[in-house]
Amino acid sequence: MSAGSSQGSARRGRPGYDQELLVRRAVEVFIRRGYDATSVGDLAAELGLSKSAIYHHVPSKEHLLSLALDDALEGLEAVIADATREPRDVSAYARLRGAVRQSVLVLVDKLPSVTLLLRVRGNGEVEISALARRRRIDEQLAGLVRDAVSEGTLRNDIAPDLISRLLFGTVNSLTEWYRPDGEVDAATLADAVVELAFDGLTVPRG
Amino acid sequence: MSAGSSQGSARRGRPGYDQELLVRRAVEVFIRRGYDATSVGDLAAELGLSKSAIYHHVPSKEHLLSLALDDALEGLEAVIADATREPRDVSAYARLRGAVRQSVLVLVDKLPSVTLLLRVRGNGEVEISALARRRRIDEQLAGLVRDAVSEGTLRNDIAPDLISRLLFGTVNSLTEWYRPDGEVDAATLADAVVELAFDGLTVPRG
Repeated sequence: MSAGSSQGSARRGRPGYDQELLVRRAVEVFIRRGYDATSVGDLAAELGLSKSAIYHHVPSKEHLLSLALDDALEGLEAVIADATREPRDVSAYARLRGAVRQSVLVLVDKLPSVTLLLRVRGNGEVEISALARRRRIDEQLAGLVRDAVSEGTLRNDIAPDLISRLLFGTVNSLTEWYRPDGEVDAATLADAVVELAFDGLTVPRG
Repeated sequence: MSAGSSQGSARRGRPGYDQELLVRRAVEVFIRRGYDATSVGDLAAELGLSKSAIYHHVPSKEHLLSLALDDALEGLEAVIADATREPRDVSAYARLRGAVRQSVLVLVDKLPSVTLLLRVRGNGEVEISALARRRRIDEQLAGLVRDAVSEGTLRNDIAPDLISRLLFGTVNSLTEWYRPDGEVDAATLADAVVELAFDGLTVPRG
Protein backbone atom coordinates (compact mmCIF):
# COMPACT_ATOMS: atom_id res chain seq x y z
CA MET A 1 0.00 0.00 0.00
CA SER A 2 1.45 3.37 -0.98
CA ALA A 3 1.30 6.41 1.32
CA GLY A 4 -0.99 8.03 -1.25
CA SER A 5 -3.56 5.26 -1.23
CA SER A 6 -3.43 5.21 2.56
CA GLN A 7 -4.29 8.90 2.70
CA GLY A 8 -7.02 8.40 0.11
CA SER A 9 -8.53 5.60 2.14
CA ALA A 10 -8.18 7.58 5.37
CA ARG A 11 -10.12 10.44 3.82
CA ARG A 12 -13.00 8.26 2.78
CA GLY A 13 -13.03 5.32 5.23
CA ARG A 14 -11.86 5.06 8.81
CA PRO A 15 -8.29 6.27 9.29
CA GLY A 16 -5.80 3.48 8.72
CA TYR A 17 -8.24 1.01 7.15
CA ASP A 18 -7.40 -0.27 3.71
CA GLN A 19 -8.86 -3.23 1.86
CA GLU A 20 -6.18 -5.63 3.09
CA LEU A 21 -6.73 -4.77 6.74
CA LEU A 22 -10.49 -4.91 6.27
CA VAL A 23 -10.23 -8.42 4.82
CA ARG A 24 -7.96 -9.51 7.66
CA ARG A 25 -10.28 -8.24 10.35
CA ALA A 26 -13.40 -9.50 8.56
CA VAL A 27 -11.89 -13.00 8.42
CA GLU A 28 -11.46 -12.96 12.20
CA VAL A 29 -15.13 -12.05 12.60
CA PHE A 30 -16.26 -14.69 10.07
CA ILE A 31 -14.28 -17.36 11.92
CA ARG A 32 -15.70 -16.33 15.30
CA ARG A 33 -19.35 -15.84 14.29
CA GLY A 34 -19.59 -17.95 11.16
CA TYR A 35 -19.65 -16.41 7.69
CA ASP A 36 -23.32 -17.14 6.96
CA ALA A 37 -24.42 -15.77 10.34
CA THR A 38 -22.52 -12.47 9.85
CA SER A 39 -24.28 -9.66 7.97
CA VAL A 40 -22.45 -6.59 6.68
CA GLY A 41 -24.20 -4.73 9.52
CA ASP A 42 -22.81 -7.20 12.09
CA LEU A 43 -19.39 -6.85 10.54
CA ALA A 44 -19.53 -3.05 10.65
CA ALA A 45 -20.57 -3.17 14.32
CA GLU A 46 -17.79 -5.61 15.21
CA LEU A 47 -15.14 -3.53 13.44
CA GLY A 48 -16.42 -0.17 14.65
CA LEU A 49 -17.04 0.96 11.05
CA SER A 50 -20.07 2.21 9.20
CA LYS A 51 -21.58 -0.06 6.55
CA SER A 52 -20.70 2.55 3.94
CA ALA A 53 -17.05 2.47 5.05
CA ILE A 54 -17.09 -1.26 4.32
CA TYR A 55 -18.80 -0.73 0.94
CA HIS A 56 -16.12 1.85 0.17
CA HIS A 57 -13.56 -0.97 0.13
CA VAL A 58 -15.57 -3.92 -1.21
CA PRO A 59 -18.82 -4.25 -3.18
CA SER A 60 -20.24 -7.07 -1.01
CA LYS A 61 -19.70 -9.53 1.82
CA GLU A 62 -19.10 -12.24 -0.82
CA HIS A 63 -16.26 -10.13 -2.20
CA LEU A 64 -14.58 -10.07 1.21
CA LEU A 65 -14.93 -13.84 1.41
CA SER A 66 -13.56 -14.19 -2.10
CA LEU A 67 -10.47 -12.07 -1.30
CA ALA A 68 -9.79 -14.11 1.85
CA LEU A 69 -10.19 -17.46 0.11
CA ASP A 70 -8.00 -16.29 -2.80
CA ASP A 71 -5.25 -15.49 -0.32
CA ALA A 72 -5.37 -19.00 1.15
CA LEU A 73 -5.75 -20.76 -2.21
CA GLU A 74 -2.94 -18.82 -3.91
CA GLY A 75 -0.61 -19.81 -1.07
CA LEU A 76 -1.49 -23.49 -1.37
CA GLU A 77 -1.44 -23.46 -5.19
CA ALA A 78 2.08 -22.00 -5.04
CA VAL A 79 3.17 -25.00 -2.95
CA ILE A 80 1.94 -27.38 -5.67
CA ALA A 81 3.51 -25.28 -8.42
CA ASP A 82 6.86 -25.35 -6.59
CA ALA A 83 6.65 -29.11 -6.06
CA THR A 84 5.94 -29.81 -9.73
CA ARG A 85 8.54 -27.28 -10.95
CA GLU A 86 11.40 -29.17 -9.25
CA PRO A 87 14.05 -30.65 -11.60
CA ARG A 88 13.19 -34.09 -12.99
CA ASP A 89 15.86 -35.86 -10.95
CA VAL A 90 14.15 -34.88 -7.71
CA SER A 91 12.15 -37.89 -6.48
CA ALA A 92 8.38 -37.77 -5.99
CA TYR A 93 9.18 -38.60 -2.38
CA ALA A 94 11.28 -35.46 -1.94
CA ARG A 95 8.68 -33.34 -3.75
CA LEU A 96 5.90 -34.68 -1.52
CA ARG A 97 7.90 -34.24 1.66
CA GLY A 98 8.69 -30.67 0.59
CA ALA A 99 5.06 -29.99 -0.31
CA VAL A 100 3.86 -31.16 3.11
CA ARG A 101 6.45 -28.98 4.84
CA GLN A 102 5.56 -25.95 2.69
CA SER A 103 1.82 -26.52 3.23
CA VAL A 104 2.36 -26.25 6.98
CA LEU A 105 4.33 -23.02 6.52
CA VAL A 106 1.58 -21.54 4.31
CA LEU A 107 -1.04 -22.60 6.83
CA VAL A 108 0.83 -20.85 9.63
CA ASP A 109 1.52 -17.76 7.54
CA LYS A 110 -2.10 -17.49 6.40
CA LEU A 111 -3.74 -19.17 9.36
CA PRO A 112 -7.00 -17.17 9.43
CA SER A 113 -7.71 -17.38 5.71
CA VAL A 114 -6.80 -21.08 5.55
CA THR A 115 -9.04 -21.70 8.58
CA LEU A 116 -11.89 -19.98 6.76
CA LEU A 117 -11.17 -21.98 3.59
CA LEU A 118 -11.40 -25.25 5.49
CA ARG A 119 -14.85 -24.29 6.79
CA VAL A 120 -16.29 -23.52 3.37
CA ARG A 121 -19.11 -25.96 2.59
CA GLY A 122 -20.23 -24.72 -0.82
CA ASN A 123 -22.98 -22.18 -0.11
CA GLY A 124 -22.99 -19.78 -3.06
CA GLU A 125 -20.76 -19.23 -6.07
CA VAL A 126 -17.70 -17.97 -4.22
CA GLU A 127 -17.64 -21.04 -2.00
CA ILE A 128 -18.33 -23.45 -4.86
CA SER A 129 -15.45 -22.00 -6.86
CA ALA A 130 -13.13 -22.13 -3.82
CA LEU A 131 -14.09 -25.77 -3.20
CA ALA A 132 -13.28 -26.59 -6.84
CA ARG A 133 -9.82 -25.00 -6.48
CA ARG A 134 -9.28 -26.80 -3.19
CA ARG A 135 -10.25 -30.10 -4.83
CA ARG A 136 -7.71 -29.46 -7.62
CA ILE A 137 -4.98 -28.88 -5.03
CA ASP A 138 -5.96 -32.08 -3.19
CA GLU A 139 -5.88 -34.04 -6.46
CA GLN A 140 -2.40 -32.79 -7.31
CA LEU A 141 -1.15 -33.69 -3.85
CA ALA A 142 -2.77 -37.11 -4.19
CA GLY A 143 -0.92 -37.44 -7.51
CA LEU A 144 2.38 -36.78 -5.73
CA VAL A 145 1.50 -39.48 -3.19
CA ARG A 146 0.71 -41.97 -5.97
CA ASP A 147 3.99 -41.13 -7.74
CA ALA A 148 5.94 -41.70 -4.53
CA VAL A 149 4.21 -45.06 -3.98
CA SER A 150 4.97 -46.00 -7.60
CA GLU A 151 8.64 -45.13 -7.31
CA GLY A 152 8.82 -47.42 -4.24
CA THR A 153 9.73 -44.78 -1.67
CA LEU A 154 6.34 -44.61 0.06
CA ARG A 155 4.70 -47.67 1.65
CA ASN A 156 2.26 -49.48 -0.57
CA ASP A 157 0.29 -51.34 2.11
CA ILE A 158 -1.97 -48.31 2.66
CA ALA A 159 -4.08 -47.11 -0.30
CA PRO A 160 -2.52 -43.93 -1.77
CA ASP A 161 -5.82 -42.04 -1.49
CA LEU A 162 -6.06 -42.93 2.18
CA ILE A 163 -2.47 -41.76 2.67
CA SER A 164 -3.38 -38.41 1.05
CA ARG A 165 -6.43 -37.99 3.26
CA LEU A 166 -4.50 -38.74 6.44
CA LEU A 167 -1.50 -36.65 5.46
CA PHE A 168 -3.43 -33.51 4.60
CA GLY A 169 -5.94 -34.17 7.37
CA THR A 170 -3.00 -33.92 9.75
CA VAL A 171 -1.86 -30.66 8.15
CA ASN A 172 -5.39 -29.20 8.14
CA SER A 173 -5.99 -30.17 11.76
CA LEU A 174 -3.34 -27.63 12.77
CA THR A 175 -5.91 -24.87 12.24
CA GLU A 176 -7.82 -26.32 15.21
CA TRP A 177 -5.14 -25.70 17.80
CA TYR A 178 -2.01 -23.97 16.44
CA ARG A 179 -1.48 -20.37 17.56
CA PRO A 180 1.46 -18.44 16.07
CA ASP A 181 2.06 -16.63 19.38
CA GLY A 182 2.45 -19.93 21.26
CA GLU A 183 5.57 -21.93 22.13
CA VAL A 184 6.01 -23.72 18.81
CA ASP A 185 7.45 -21.77 15.88
CA ALA A 186 6.44 -22.46 12.28
CA ALA A 187 9.65 -24.28 11.28
CA THR A 188 9.53 -26.58 14.33
CA LEU A 189 5.89 -27.35 13.59
CA ALA A 190 6.56 -28.06 9.91
CA ASP A 191 9.49 -30.36 10.73
CA ALA A 192 7.44 -32.20 13.36
CA VAL A 193 4.54 -32.83 10.96
CA VAL A 194 6.91 -34.12 8.27
CA GLU A 195 8.80 -36.35 10.71
CA LEU A 196 5.65 -37.79 12.27
CA ALA A 197 4.09 -38.55 8.89
CA PHE A 198 7.13 -39.80 6.98
CA ASP A 199 9.47 -41.19 9.63
CA GLY A 200 6.96 -42.03 12.39
CA LEU A 201 7.13 -41.48 16.12
CA THR A 202 8.71 -44.82 16.98
CA VAL A 203 12.39 -44.80 17.91
CA PRO A 204 14.11 -46.90 15.22
CA ARG A 205 15.41 -50.24 16.50
CA GLY A 206 19.13 -51.00 16.68
CA MET B 1 -35.44 -50.31 23.89
CA SER B 2 -38.14 -52.79 24.85
CA ALA B 3 -41.27 -53.29 22.78
CA GLY B 4 -43.22 -51.88 25.73
CA SER B 5 -41.32 -48.58 25.83
CA SER B 6 -41.59 -48.35 22.05
CA GLN B 7 -45.36 -48.55 22.28
CA GLY B 8 -45.39 -46.04 25.13
CA SER B 9 -43.30 -43.60 23.13
CA ALA B 10 -45.42 -44.19 20.02
CA ARG B 11 -48.53 -43.31 21.98
CA ARG B 12 -47.18 -40.01 23.19
CA GLY B 13 -44.62 -38.89 20.57
CA ARG B 14 -44.34 -39.70 16.89
CA PRO B 15 -44.50 -43.43 16.18
CA GLY B 16 -41.09 -45.03 16.45
CA TYR B 17 -39.31 -42.07 18.05
CA ASP B 18 -37.57 -42.68 21.33
CA GLN B 19 -35.03 -40.52 23.12
CA GLU B 20 -32.05 -42.28 21.54
CA LEU B 21 -33.33 -41.80 18.00
CA LEU B 22 -34.26 -38.20 18.77
CA VAL B 23 -30.71 -37.50 19.98
CA ARG B 24 -29.24 -39.17 16.92
CA ARG B 25 -31.35 -37.16 14.49
CA ALA B 26 -30.91 -33.93 16.45
CA VAL B 27 -27.13 -34.34 16.26
CA GLU B 28 -27.34 -34.54 12.47
CA VAL B 29 -29.30 -31.29 12.42
CA PHE B 30 -26.91 -29.57 14.87
CA ILE B 31 -23.94 -30.56 12.71
CA ARG B 32 -25.60 -29.33 9.53
CA ARG B 33 -27.06 -26.06 10.84
CA GLY B 34 -24.87 -25.37 13.87
CA TYR B 35 -26.07 -25.97 17.43
CA ASP B 36 -26.41 -22.30 18.40
CA ALA B 37 -28.31 -21.49 15.21
CA THR B 38 -30.86 -24.28 15.72
CA SER B 39 -33.91 -23.57 17.91
CA VAL B 40 -36.21 -26.30 19.22
CA GLY B 41 -38.71 -25.01 16.66
CA ASP B 42 -36.13 -25.45 13.84
CA LEU B 43 -35.35 -28.92 15.12
CA ALA B 44 -39.02 -29.88 15.24
CA ALA B 45 -39.50 -28.64 11.67
CA GLU B 46 -36.43 -30.51 10.42
CA LEU B 47 -37.48 -33.75 12.08
CA GLY B 48 -41.17 -33.45 11.18
CA LEU B 49 -42.14 -33.43 14.86
CA SER B 50 -44.09 -31.02 17.04
CA LYS B 51 -42.15 -29.08 19.67
CA SER B 52 -44.19 -30.84 22.33
CA ALA B 53 -43.12 -34.23 20.91
CA ILE B 54 -39.51 -33.12 21.46
CA TYR B 55 -40.26 -31.87 24.96
CA HIS B 56 -41.88 -35.21 25.67
CA HIS B 57 -38.44 -36.82 25.33
CA VAL B 58 -36.10 -34.12 26.68
CA PRO B 59 -36.59 -31.04 28.88
CA SER B 60 -34.47 -28.73 26.66
CA LYS B 61 -32.19 -28.33 23.66
CA GLU B 62 -29.22 -28.27 26.07
CA HIS B 63 -30.29 -31.67 27.36
CA LEU B 64 -30.12 -33.08 23.82
CA LEU B 65 -26.64 -31.62 23.43
CA SER B 66 -25.63 -33.02 26.79
CA LEU B 67 -26.82 -36.54 25.88
CA ALA B 68 -24.93 -36.40 22.57
CA LEU B 69 -21.70 -35.13 24.14
CA ASP B 70 -21.95 -37.73 26.93
CA ASP B 71 -22.11 -40.42 24.29
CA ALA B 72 -18.90 -39.19 22.64
CA LEU B 73 -17.08 -38.49 25.90
CA GLU B 74 -17.98 -41.84 27.49
CA GLY B 75 -16.58 -43.62 24.44
CA LEU B 76 -13.30 -41.70 24.58
CA GLU B 77 -13.01 -41.98 28.37
CA ALA B 78 -13.40 -45.75 28.04
CA VAL B 79 -10.38 -45.76 25.68
CA ILE B 80 -8.24 -44.08 28.34
CA ALA B 81 -9.59 -46.34 31.08
CA ASP B 82 -8.68 -49.40 28.98
CA ALA B 83 -5.19 -48.06 28.26
CA THR B 84 -4.44 -47.41 31.94
CA ARG B 85 -6.00 -50.71 33.07
CA GLU B 86 -3.50 -52.76 31.03
CA PRO B 87 -1.13 -54.99 33.06
CA ARG B 88 2.01 -53.24 34.33
CA ASP B 89 4.31 -55.13 31.99
CA VAL B 90 2.63 -53.58 28.94
CA SER B 91 4.83 -50.72 27.73
CA ALA B 92 3.57 -47.13 27.56
CA TYR B 93 4.30 -47.42 23.84
CA ALA B 94 1.89 -50.35 23.42
CA ARG B 95 -0.74 -48.59 25.57
CA LEU B 96 -0.46 -45.43 23.49
CA ARG B 97 -0.57 -47.28 20.19
CA GLY B 98 -3.63 -49.15 21.41
CA ALA B 99 -5.27 -45.94 22.62
CA VAL B 100 -4.79 -44.26 19.24
CA ARG B 101 -6.26 -47.26 17.45
CA GLN B 102 -9.22 -47.45 19.83
CA SER B 103 -9.80 -43.68 19.54
CA VAL B 104 -10.21 -44.06 15.79
CA LEU B 105 -12.68 -46.93 16.28
CA VAL B 106 -14.73 -44.88 18.79
CA LEU B 107 -14.67 -41.91 16.44
CA VAL B 108 -16.01 -44.03 13.59
CA ASP B 109 -18.60 -45.76 15.80
CA LYS B 110 -19.84 -42.47 17.26
CA LEU B 111 -18.95 -40.21 14.33
CA PRO B 112 -21.82 -37.70 14.64
CA SER B 113 -21.51 -37.18 18.39
CA VAL B 114 -17.70 -36.95 18.26
CA THR B 115 -18.00 -34.45 15.38
CA LEU B 116 -20.35 -32.36 17.52
CA LEU B 117 -17.98 -32.64 20.50
CA LEU B 118 -15.08 -31.32 18.43
CA ARG B 119 -17.11 -28.25 17.46
CA VAL B 120 -17.97 -27.31 21.04
CA ARG B 121 -16.43 -23.95 21.91
CA GLY B 122 -17.65 -23.45 25.48
CA ASN B 123 -20.93 -21.54 25.14
CA GLY B 124 -22.99 -22.42 28.20
CA GLU B 125 -22.64 -24.89 31.06
CA VAL B 126 -23.09 -28.08 29.04
CA GLU B 127 -20.30 -27.08 26.63
CA ILE B 128 -17.99 -25.90 29.41
CA SER B 129 -18.38 -29.18 31.25
CA ALA B 130 -17.80 -31.15 28.02
CA LEU B 131 -14.66 -29.13 27.28
CA ALA B 132 -13.36 -29.88 30.78
CA ARG B 133 -13.90 -33.62 30.25
CA ARG B 134 -12.28 -33.40 26.84
CA ARG B 135 -9.29 -31.61 28.35
CA ARG B 136 -8.93 -34.39 30.96
CA ILE B 137 -8.89 -36.99 28.17
CA ASP B 138 -6.27 -34.99 26.25
CA GLU B 139 -4.13 -34.69 29.40
CA GLN B 140 -4.24 -38.42 30.01
CA LEU B 141 -3.28 -39.14 26.42
CA ALA B 142 -0.46 -36.59 26.69
CA GLY B 143 0.65 -38.46 29.84
CA LEU B 144 0.85 -41.68 27.84
CA VAL B 145 2.95 -39.88 25.20
CA ARG B 146 5.33 -38.56 27.90
CA ASP B 147 5.63 -42.03 29.45
CA ALA B 148 6.49 -43.54 26.07
CA VAL B 149 9.14 -40.86 25.46
CA SER B 150 10.55 -41.51 28.95
CA GLU B 151 10.78 -45.27 28.41
CA GLY B 152 12.74 -44.57 25.22
CA THR B 153 10.30 -46.07 22.73
CA LEU B 154 9.00 -42.79 21.31
CA ARG B 155 11.30 -40.23 19.64
CA ASN B 156 12.49 -37.49 21.97
CA ASP B 157 13.46 -34.89 19.35
CA ILE B 158 9.88 -33.59 19.14
CA ALA B 159 8.35 -32.12 22.32
CA PRO B 160 5.90 -34.65 23.86
CA ASP B 161 3.13 -32.06 23.96
CA LEU B 162 3.60 -31.34 20.27
CA ILE B 163 3.50 -35.08 19.56
CA SER B 164 0.18 -35.30 21.44
CA ARG B 165 -1.30 -32.41 19.52
CA LEU B 166 -0.27 -33.82 16.16
CA LEU B 167 -1.30 -37.37 17.01
CA PHE B 168 -4.80 -36.52 18.20
CA GLY B 169 -5.14 -33.76 15.62
CA THR B 170 -4.68 -36.50 13.02
CA VAL B 171 -7.34 -38.65 14.71
CA ASN B 172 -9.77 -35.72 15.09
CA SER B 173 -9.30 -34.64 11.47
CA LEU B 174 -11.02 -37.87 10.41
CA THR B 175 -14.37 -36.27 11.30
CA GLU B 176 -13.79 -33.86 8.41
CA TRP B 177 -13.81 -36.45 5.68
CA TYR B 178 -14.41 -40.01 6.88
CA ARG B 179 -17.78 -41.52 5.93
CA PRO B 180 -18.64 -44.99 7.29
CA ASP B 181 -20.44 -45.91 4.05
CA GLY B 182 -17.34 -45.18 1.96
CA GLU B 183 -14.59 -47.50 0.72
CA VAL B 184 -12.47 -47.59 3.87
CA ASP B 185 -13.71 -49.71 6.79
CA ALA B 186 -13.06 -48.77 10.41
CA ALA B 187 -10.31 -51.33 11.04
CA THR B 188 -8.39 -50.35 7.88
CA LEU B 189 -8.67 -46.70 8.87
CA ALA B 190 -7.50 -47.34 12.43
CA ASP B 191 -4.52 -49.39 11.25
CA ALA B 192 -3.56 -46.74 8.69
CA VAL B 193 -3.62 -43.93 11.27
CA VAL B 194 -1.49 -45.97 13.69
CA GLU B 195 0.98 -46.95 10.98
CA LEU B 196 1.32 -43.43 9.59
CA ALA B 197 1.87 -41.92 13.03
CA PHE B 198 4.10 -44.55 14.62
CA ASP B 199 5.90 -46.19 11.72
CA GLY B 200 5.76 -43.41 9.12
CA LEU B 201 4.97 -43.52 5.43
CA THR B 202 8.54 -43.97 4.25
CA VAL B 203 9.53 -47.43 3.02
CA PRO B 204 12.26 -48.62 5.40
CA ARG B 205 15.71 -48.75 3.79
CA GLY B 206 17.46 -52.06 3.19
